[in-house]
Amino acid sequence: MQETRLDIDRIQAARRMIDPIFLDTPLYRCEALEPGLGCAVNIKLETANPVRSFKARGTELVASLLADSGSRDVVCASAGNLGQALAWSGRDRGLNVTVVASRHATVAKLDRIRALGARLELVDGDHELARARAAAIAQHQGIRLVEDSLDIETCEGAATIGLELVDTMPSLDVVLIALGGGALATGVGHVVKALAPGAEVICVQPSGAPAMTRSWHERRVVTTDSTDTIADGVAGRYPIPAVLDDLLVVADDAVLVQEASIIAGMRMLLGHAGLVVEPSAALGIAAILEDRDRFAGRHVVTIVCGSNVDMDAYQRWVGA
Amino acid sequence: MQETRLDIDRIQAARRMIDPIFLDTPLYRCEALEPGLGCAVNIKLETANPVRSFKARGTELVASLLADSGSRDVVCASAGNLGQALAWSGRDRGLNVTVVASRHATVAKLDRIRALGARLELVDGDHELARARAAAIAQHQGIRLVEDSLDIETCEGAATIGLELVDTMPSLDVVLIALGGGALATGVGHVVKALAPGAEVICVQPSGAPAMTRSWHERRVVTTDSTDTIADGVAGRYPIPAVLDDLLVVADDAVLVQEASIIAGMRMLLGHAGLVVEPSAALGIAAILEDRDRFAGRHVVTIVCGSNVDMDAYQRWVGA
Repeated sequence: MQETRLDIDRIQAARRMIDPIFLDTPLYRCEALEPGLGCAVNIKLETANPVRSFKARGTELVASLLADSGSRDVVCASAGNLGQALAWSGRDRGLNVTVVASRHATVAKLDRIRALGARLELVDGDHELARARAAAIAQHQGIRLVEDSLDIETCEGAATIGLELVDTMPSLDVVLIALGGGALATGVGHVVKALAPGAEVICVQPSGAPAMTRSWHERRVVTTDSTDTIADGVAGRYPIPAVLDDLLVVADDAVLVQEASIIAGMRMLLGHAGLVVEPSAALGIAAILEDRDRFAGRHVVTIVCGSNVDMDAYQRWVGA
Repeated sequence: MQETRLDIDRIQAARRMIDPIFLDTPLYRCEALEPGLGCAVNIKLETANPVRSFKARGTELVASLLADSGSRDVVCASAGNLGQALAWSGRDRGLNVTVVASRHATVAKLDRIRALGARLELVDGDHELARARAAAIAQHQGIRLVEDSLDIETCEGAATIGLELVDTMPSLDVVLIALGGGALATGVGHVVKALAPGAEVICVQPSGAPAMTRSWHERRVVTTDSTDTIADGVAGRYPIPAVLDDLLVVADDAVLVQEASIIAGMRMLLGHAGLVVEPSAALGIAAILEDRDRFAGRHVVTIVCGSNVDMDAYQRWVGA
């Protein structure tokens, strides 16, 4: 395998710095989903923890290293899950966490960030404006900026999911990974390509937020002017070049799915698996729904990466 | 501690016979629930597995021992979760599983029992009639009857949850346990009383199905003529004397809760924890809601024991 910024030894070492509450998450086959999908569907569940997403695997690393270094202040931009995770990881380590988010972010995520004691700054714009604002705060105050997917800890944290997948499920044929900034996809993808090279790594992004997927296909950074998706967790417009480089090494494909498929995926996960998920966590099921033939009869893992939703919006999406 | 039918060494040995997919389930604090409850709420999540309940911990033992003995046929009565778990555990071991259930059982549970390849026989009556019918089948055909809570494997399987609780959470003050036949309560209760004797073991049953709770308070078997609760998983009428004897040793209290509290608990678990649960799994939260003062400021664990619901009934319960 060609090199990426990631390294298996470092990822294994990372596991030891993460609170075990975020590790060894459930991985199980959900046969009740299969009649509707035509393949063996395995769920890697990243929602049964104090922040209801996989993001704390990365923020545990960030916060541990930061606390060890004696630094106390940290800022990140977030659609909500990274911010909540950083707030959680920072709280017990005595860090001052600032999270910058869009004013239009999911209310439930913003409420949890505040409840965990972080300072929350809202911007009148989308996630890319929040990223710019967080960078400005970091530069102005001389404090640590956590850049999701660029900062290697965020990728290494996510990559620990990959270790658990290849350890527990040697018969893995396909891993479906939500694609946003790319930390989850490059992290898990690196491990799968290194340790289970026969498995296919497929990234899934909404058609309404296609920047990284287009970039992967064109093998150069492609930006978009706007996003239009309910999958708030993956709605970026400016792919990071170094992350794209890694993704080009580890991903076998990157596909786009329609909003209707994301909603159908959420509905299936609720009805047949009893799981409330946020839209980004239904991208894998959406990909199967849009291309059943591709997955027919194969052993598929989909990473259910988060469950932070506004319940009224959720009910609107999945209800009758 | 006074003796029960359970034994820590046997429970530790039991762990090794259970498919790891059912072990080491998530245990995490859910702070978002706490403003409404006034105590530290920790969730032990038994739903993220192929049968969506804790029951497979017991059926894995039953089926392993049965397969080792060369027997191939087994029957149980079930409100749905035991039957589903026995069907799952029996399938890969080549067992012929028969499940007897009430015609009024949760449809989703019955569907899964059939899908897992078990023979399903429905009776025109409640769970107690299903128990009688299963016993008759076993006697007539000379095959193994699995009696939930009476058969020690069902208690030992459930007890492995207790090992995980005391290992992971030494600061435990209270464990809230759904009380039906008593396997979960006596199993977990035994371990907690043996290994974390400072923690309080509180069993929770619906007011509409109070037989075991009344029996515990009167220290003798008390039966009821009927049940009236949405918590189908715990709606028995004839407590088993040997199980009551154990429960008298390990439980510090047994409390009854109203249907409205069960529904409020389900609603809180959905809205603040993102968890779809069946009514029996909300009994612990219901108990806190009905007696906040008792739990104020304490570290409570509630075992979320199952998530098999009919979605239309669920929506009716938790919706607006």
